[in-house]
Amino acid sequence: MRPTARQVAELANVSVATVSYVLSGKDRPVAAETRQRVLDAARQLGYTPNQAARSLRKRRTQRVCLVLSSFGGVPTDARLATDLHEMADARGYSVVTLSVYDEARAQAAVEVLRGGIADGALIRLTGGHLEQGLLGGLADTGLPMVVMSNGSGLEGCDVVRTPEVEACAEAVEHLLTTGRRRVAFMGQRYEVYSDKPEGRLLGYLTALERNGGAERIITGGADDRVAAYQTATGLLSSPDRPDAIFAASDRAAISAIWAARDLGLSVPGDVAIVGVGNIDEGLISNPQLSTVGPLRHDYTDVVRLLFDRLQAEEPPPAREIVRSWTFVRRGSS
Amino acid sequence: MRPTARQVAELANVSVATVSYVLSGKDRPVAAETRQRVLDAARQLGYTPNQAARSLRKRRTQRVCLVLSSFGGVPTDARLATDLHEMADARGYSVVTLSVYDEARAQAAVEVLRGGIADGALIRLTGGHLEQGLLGGLADTGLPMVVMSNGSGLEGCDVVRTPEVEACAEAVEHLLTTGRRRVAFMGQRYEVYSDKPEGRLLGYLTALERNGGAERIITGGADDRVAAYQTATGLLSSPDRPDAIFAASDRAAISAIWAARDLGLSVPGDVAIVGVGNIDEGLISNPQLSTVGPLRHDYTDVVRLLFDRLQAEEPPPAREIVRSWTFVRRGSS
Repeated sequence: MRPTARQVAELANVSVATVSYVLSGKDRPVAAETRQRVLDAARQLGYTPNQAARSLRKRRTQRVCLVLSSFGGVPTDARLATDLHEMADARGYSVVTLSVYDEARAQAAVEVLRGGIADGALIRLTGGHLEQGLLGGLADTGLPMVVMSNGSGLEGCDVVRTPEVEACAEAVEHLLTTGRRRVAFMGQRYEVYSDKPEGRLLGYLTALERNGGAERIITGGADDRVAAYQTATGLLSSPDRPDAIFAASDRAAISAIWAARDLGLSVPGDVAIVGVGNIDEGLISNPQLSTVGPLRHDYTDVVRLLFDRLQAEEPPPAREIVRSWTFVRRGSS
Repeated sequence: MRPTARQVAELANVSVATVSYVLSGKDRPVAAETRQRVLDAARQLGYTPNQAARSLRKRRTQRVCLVLSSFGGVPTDARLATDLHEMADARGYSVVTLSVYDEARAQAAVEVLRGGIADGALIRLTGGHLEQGLLGGLADTGLPMVVMSNGSGLEGCDVVRTPEVEACAEAVEHLLTTGRRRVAFMGQRYEVYSDKPEGRLLGYLTALERNGGAERIITGGADDRVAAYQTATGLLSSPDRPDAIFAASDRAAISAIWAARDLGLSVPGDVAIVGVGNIDEGLISNPQLSTVGPLRHDYTDVVRLLFDRLQAEEPPPAREIVRSWTFVRRGSS
């Protein structure tokens, strides 16, 4: 077994970080006597410059890359970005962001990442096909990666999952078991136009099936507030209007509340409305928004996975975090 | 005067792009005969490899950098990002984004840009101090830059200005001349805590002065929807409540409309509300939102400045675009 930096550190009686500073040639203040002790210990154990060089190579840009599908407007993305920037600041890293919203962009991101723009990447994409394109292209690079995804076949990287399908099914079951008969799903573009049901749409369909197959009413509109308002207005103006709307984002659900109020409908009397995301804005809507999502919006556990991976001497085994999601019933349902 | 690539192109009867491909050694298909003609023309005119090398150096990453203050949630930033990505796609460039929201981040962005992460930058920051920090650090790099700013002393880059102060003053004067006596300003953090009035706050103060110095009522809250709702609720619940709110963002103004409605106040009867930005969402608020901003949300003219600069053989003279802003009166005032 080849010697590790930890063994060098122990022998020299210094921290692993100090070993790394000395052997990577980084310009950090290390006392001459300490430096000599590290060099001696490395020689004694046969810790080779190659390893140090690889370690240097792995940290060569002091940058991390955030890969998102949105240009803003998605609250989870904004919060994730905030937490990543804060931890990066504290550790002397810069953050660059790439936007991947179609397959051409996924390909461009692969090229940029393969080109070595950053030492590691935190990836959260909306739409499994984009994720596959990106990760497929990066599979052989050894780039440290953390992927927020419920997809399968993610190897060699840390994965952060959310029990989204089950939590959304629970929300829709809540609507069905409290007497709603016509529950509409207002989805994101990638869900509604996908060949195969996934994510929040799959949760909706699962709940309908479990409850004897109520009618499916599926529309788009959840990607932006204006589209959601217009879609909800259309749904709620029709003669066979739904008595509940399950929207795939809280932003869309809040627009649906406005639309109902502007049509003179009572929420939840005439129509129950439930969103996804549990954003703070759900607390200032009137009525307050029932929603599905994380109870805490804190992604430091996710971000820490990336920095652990970046700072590891040897590639650590792939880890998985499952973040909990809950249905939160408030006034709108 | 040194010969230019354009002269080489004319003599060889090819495009400037072809000259660039041949002399920069880029791996693009150019017929052998054409290549020879370009090389002959370059020799004949004394077009030196140094120039070609510089030209190669200038385009070395095929990336452009977008520098923003937000992590999303600012509609103008999202639209600017969309337009930049589209034009970058069409021209074979990738886009990386940097977020600059404090002085440490401005410094980090300077380092990343000086390190050559991109061939040029499009910069839109909220807050003059961040802009100064960033641009000061990049002044001597020759990096092609387009800056969306109303600041002074911007040299060596293209500048895109908006007559924001004057347009906001017009909106506030509209409120004062239609009988409002107590006009509150709900500002962005950087405006409200700045030593020196700028931007939208300056427009508000200018209008008050022009109209005999009505009382100043200044609060924060315009940076996010929840804070705006809470701030507006506080203002409108007080015994000497304002009869108008001028909010520095449409998002905040829309939250203020909800707050007024939830308090049982009529808009604009009890309180007039005006925002800034002219986002589409103002058309689905109830009543529709009066606002100040651009009539069209299309930043291709801005983005084109950057690509013109990137593709120029010689650094072009600095240009300035002034984008028009208008006050749009709708139902909320």
